Parts: sequence; structure tokens; C-alpha cells
Amino acid sequence: MRLQRDRSLLLMIDFQAGLLPVIEGGLQVIEEAAWLANVAEALAVPVWLTEQYPEKLGGTAAGLISELGEHQVWQKHHFSAMEAPEFAQALKAQSVQQVVICGTEAHICVLQSALGLLEAGYSVYWLSEATASRRCEEARFARERACAQGAIAVTADMVAYEWLDRCDTALFKEVHRRLLKPRSSRGVTFF
Amino acid sequence: MRLQRDRSLLLMIDFQAGLLPVIEGGLQVIEEAAWLANVAEALAVPVWLTEQYPEKLGGTAAGLISELGEHQVWQKHHFSAMEAPEFAQALKAQSVQQVVICGTEAHICVLQSALGLLEAGYSVYWLSEATASRRCEEARFARERACAQGAIAVTADMVAYEWLDRCDTALFKEVHRRLLKPRSSRGVTFF
Amino acid sequence: MRLQRDRSLLLMIDFQAGLLPVIEGGLQVIEEAAWLANVAEALAVPVWLTEQYPEKLGGTAAGLISELGEHQVWQKHHFSAMEAPEFAQALKAQSVQQVVICGTEAHICVLQSALGLLEAGYSVYWLSEATASRRCEEARFARERACAQGAIAVTADMVAYEWLDRCDTALFKEVHRRLLKPRSSRGVTFF
Amino acid sequence: MRLQRDRSLLLMIDFQAGLLPVIEGGLQVIEEAAWLANVAEALAVPVWLTEQYPEKLGGTAAGLISELGEHQVWQKHHFSAMEAPEFAQALKAQSVQQVVICGTEAHICVLQSALGLLEAGYSVYWLSEATASRRCEEARFARERACAQGAIAVTADMVAYEWLDRCDTALFKEVHRRLLKPRSSRGVTFF
Repeated sequence: MRLQRDRSLLLMIDFQAGLLPVIEGGLQVIEEAAWLANVAEALAVPVWLTEQYPEKLGGTAAGLISELGEHQVWQKHHFSAMEAPEFAQALKAQSVQQVVICGTEAHICVLQSALGLLEAGYSVYWLSEATASRRCEEARFARERACAQGAIAVTADMVAYEWLDRCDTALFKEVHRRLLKPRSSRGVTFF
Repeated sequence: MRLQRDRSLLLMIDFQAGLLPVIEGGLQVIEEAAWLANVAEALAVPVWLTEQYPEKLGGTAAGLISELGEHQVWQKHHFSAMEAPEFAQALKAQSVQQVVICGTEAHICVLQSALGLLEAGYSVYWLSEATASRRCEEARFARERACAQGAIAVTADMVAYEWLDRCDTALFKEVHRRLLKPRSSRGVTFF
Repeated sequence: MRLQRDRSLLLMIDFQAGLLPVIEGGLQVIEEAAWLANVAEALAVPVWLTEQYPEKLGGTAAGLISELGEHQVWQKHHFSAMEAPEFAQALKAQSVQQVVICGTEAHICVLQSALGLLEAGYSVYWLSEATASRRCEEARFARERACAQGAIAVTADMVAYEWLDRCDTALFKEVHRRLLKPRSSRGVTFF
Repeated sequence: MRLQRDRSLLLMIDFQAGLLPVIEGGLQVIEEAAWLANVAEALAVPVWLTEQYPEKLGGTAAGLISELGEHQVWQKHHFSAMEAPEFAQALKAQSVQQVVICGTEAHICVLQSALGLLEAGYSVYWLSEATASRRCEEARFARERACAQGAIAVTADMVAYEWLDRCDTALFKEVHRRLLKPRSSRGVTFF
């Protein structure tokens, strides 16, 4: 039930330049997704991104890309990432069982991808402060629907502390100093 | 789990002239139900309506009927549509597994119909912005009760994008231009 | 899943004179419980009351008793009515499967009775506008806990319309005129 | 489903001096946890405390310790108490099936401990007014996640009255006079 870093992957759905300006909380979702991606990088958790129809909606927001270390980008035309066979196969090839999902819009591409992941047998963790829609109430409906079908709503702090597991390691101390502590007093909205 | 247009039916419960004026959100439920009916029509999803005791409560609101394309109307005296044998049999004759339900009052006829559909083995999708009661809190209790027994709360946007499945088709482009885009910035209350 | 009047019983827990003055919503719970008891009486649904330690907390509030027709009163010392063997046995002797429960305090005697009923195999319907506690947030926690363990949260209007089943009977017309209609525009708080 | 005092243990997670000042509701959680610990003591329910990395975060808050009777303290470095083998084994050696959990931070050490307890087969009762985080919304997400995985959200009053079971005993009268009654009109926030 707890997240384990060697079985996890962080999946960022459609954080695209052409979408974010109309999202309620668009600035925050980028900031919090980037923060967790930094934690993931420190812990060797893979970071994957999708882009919906980038020829029309633009690529991933520059403000997010500039914060990322190693990552992989997938383009898609179906709203659900799992409908793209190359994505589904590549995911299957990873030793991943737990997918932490975030992105926009919560009730379209994130939700459909989450449902596809659940159907394929993955555990899905819905990152509440980095998953949003144009209407924030609609993001809440998306989260509740995903959870009703088996997803687990989490916060970035929950994920980080579960990946870290214990506090008496050099790794914890470094991540705490560089990422956990600076964020601890930051105000956050959970969608 | 996701909605599929070739297995779906849109069921509108008792949007009647004699009921709507006392419903909290009565104007909105008509507008949003009509919008999704237009999406359904574009995607060849059948649209069915019920009327409760029309000799007393009046027929379906004219403002809704005028927006509809092809549709079928069923009259009933039980609060649950599924108690009317001709309705239940006609539904069984369709190749339908997923029923998107909306209407008034949420906690009486919509709820009882939803429970009847669930008992009969259908998947029930509760359309949150088009299902209301006189007291909006009571509509929420109805939704939560239906969901506790297996229904899935959805928004009109969720339904439309799941029915459409992908964005690189002529059909998507037409529906997007004509229906999705014009509604995207509209304020909506979810009951 | 729907309530049926020939399998139902209305159970009122500890609406006692010595408790009600400190309950948030104490006046309303009496009024709404009495209203549903009147519907129950019209439909021949049995109405049972319990009293916790009446030698200390006083009997059932006079304002409720005066509204009731035929009813049965049980006294108890355990917080859960189901711990009183004579109550549990008498209930078993009835042809009852669905218990609509209400009363005070939600998080003590109503909750414990509800859990006992669920353990004994009854379907429990938690009457939201007539079940309250000193702190209304605590009544909500009680309702959510009961529901997490299988109870179903309902409103008085839901119960009445499910018991009535259809609108084209003389019985419906009489209950509608005398009870449903006069209450329809009344403001109600759901706990 | 109801709590039974001879199968229960009260587990207080990391109420530490170095953590509490930044917790939203830090003063209340200490007060309410101490209150329930007093009830536990009166009923011979064991009270256990954990301390996370006390060499850094300080020991248990003096304001809580001074209120406690007999209790046992466990130190840990994993966020989940169940990852400490000596804790897990000692718990197994008790005749305990129901663990009432509270503490800080809700979404880190309390949550991870709760999930570990659930995995090990214990029933977990999440004490809502004594379990908090820096951000109170995040405590709510923690509670809801624990509950989605089988924990049961409770209030201190619920726990006390279930442990007491009935009102006609000398024990009830003493606990009522000394603890239940004085707290009954106190305002409480449930996280």
C-alpha cells in the first residue's frame, strides 16, 4: 500500500503550454510537479511525460522542462496514454507497479489514463496538488471517480516520505535539506 | 470503466415543466442536459426521456425538447423507470451497457431509476451538472447514495471526451468546434 | 436496494427530553422524525422508540410523542439497542429487513445501534435530517462511519417516495396532500 | 466493528516537542490525545507512544507526558512504526486487535504506521481530533487514504462510549463524571 521507490514511476500528463493558462491552479501544478520530479530524480524514480497533440497544443511548458533532469516524453492522440501501444508496451517493460500520476486536464487525459492504468493492473496514485482542470470542481470529480475505481489520492509530501522510508540515511538528509524542508511551509492547494 | 459511445445511452428523467421551476439549478440542468444530448446526437448515442405522470406534471420542458434531435419518450407512474416493464424490455433490446442518467428530482425518480438500473446489471453514470432536486443538498445525498451502490459520478465534459476517445478525427474536430469549445469557459455547478 | 414498506421499520433512538436541548439541530430532528413517523403510520410501517436510561435522562420528548400514532418503546442501558436481548429478539420476530434509523446522539447510541444492526444482517438506512449530536461535525463522522460499514445515508423524502413506490394510487394522493406537499418547501439541514 | 476495551490499544505517534509548534491544531491534538489517554487509563487500555528520531526532533511534548499514567515509549527511525521489528513484535505479543491511532504528522508517520498496521491485519481507528499535519487539508487527505484502505475514522467520544459499552455501571459513572461530562461542551475541530 505504501509507495516504494524501486517500484514507482512518476507520470506527468499533458502539462502543455497551450493548456496551462486556462487551468485553475495552472501555475501551482507546474511548480509542485517539478518539485516531485526533483525528488524522483534524487531517488532514481523514472519520470515520464506525455503530450497531447503537441502540433496543436504546444509542447510541455518550458517552466516545467527546465526543472527536469532525465525524463522521457511520449506523444499521443488518444486522451488516455494507455491507448498508445508504444507507451503501454514501454511501461510494461519497466519493473514498475506503482504509477504516481499528475497533469492536466484532470477530468480528461489524466482521468482516462488513470482508468487505463487501473484496468491494466497498475496501482495508481493521484497527485492531488499537481492535477487540475479548468474548473477546479471538475478536477475533484475526476479524483473521486478515479479513487472510486481503485486509485489512491496522495499529496507530494506523502509520496516523498514513502519513497524515502526512513530518516537516518544520508539520502534522506540530502533530500530533506534540499527539497523537503524548503517546501514544508509553502501554501498548497489540493484539488 | 471509461464510457464507450457504442455501448451508451443517455437517459433523461422527468425534465418536466411542472417540476423545473422549483428545482435549485433548474435552468442549468436543462441547458447542460441539452448540451450533452447534442453531443450524443453527433455520436449516434441514443437519447431517451421519461415523463412522470405527465397528465399532472406536464410534458418535458419545451426549452429542452426544442434542443433535441431524435429521441424517445417514455411515460411512467412508478418513480423508477425500471418498474415500467415496457421501458425495461426496450432497454434490454438495445445493445446498451452504460447508461448516463440525469434529471429531476435527483433523490426521487433519478435515484430510484439508477438503483433499478444497477440491480439490472447496467453501469450507471450520474451526470452531476444535470441532476438536481429542490434542495441541492438532497441531490448530493442522492448522488452519494447511488455511488455507494455502484454508480459513477461524471461530468458532461468527461462523458463527451470518453465518447470521443481521441482528438485526431474529423468527428472530434467537428464536435470540438461546435460543442466542446463554446462550452469550455462556461461556469457550471456540479450537484 | 430501494426501501420497501412491507420490509421496513422506523427506529427512533433516544429522542429524550434530557438530551435534546444540547443537540445542534435538536428542534429539527424532532420535527423531521415526527414527519416520517406520520408517513410510516399511513403506510403501516412499524415505529419503534428507544430510551436510554430514562430514570436519568427523562422519557421521550413530549413534542415527539404527541405526534406519534401507534408505536412501541424500549428502554435500555447499553448504548447499542442491539445489546438488549429483548429488543433484538422482538426485532427478529418481525418480518423486517430494512431499518430506518434516526435519533440522538448520532455518534453514540445511534451509531452503536446501527453497527449492531449491520452485524446482525439488517440493512440500515441512516436518516440524515433526524440524526444529530451535540457537535454537528461529530454527527457527520458518525454517518460516514456507519456508511463505510454498510449503512446507507438517506433523507426523509427518499424514504417516503420509496415506500410509496408509485404516484397513481389513492394512498399516494392522500400522503402527498397531507404530508409530502406541505413539507416540500421546508428548509432542512442534513447532518 | 465497535471498539472493545479488552482488545484495544491507544497508539500515539510522534507527539514531539520539535514538531508540534508547526502543526495546524498542535495545541488541540495534545489536549484531546491526553483526554483519551486518561479514559484509556481508567479502562486499563494500554497506551503506547512513538518518537521519531528524538535526538533531532526532541522527545514527546512535556504537556502530554505530564498528563499520562502508565505508558510505553518506542523510538524509531522509519516513518512507519511497523517497520521497527521490536515494536511490531511487542504489539503482536499483546492481545490487541484494535488500534486507536493518533499523532503527527497525519500524512507521514501516522499514515505510514496506519497502513503498516492494516497490512498486518489490525483494525485501525483514526482519531480525527488528535491527528494533524502542518497543513490541515493534508491531514484530511491522510485520513481519507487510510480509510480507503480499511481504517475507520472515529472521534474521541465515540471511542470512549464504545469502550464503556453501557451506562449503568460504577465505572461509567466515574468516567462520566470525571472525563466525559467536563469535555462534553468543549469545542473540537475534527481534521
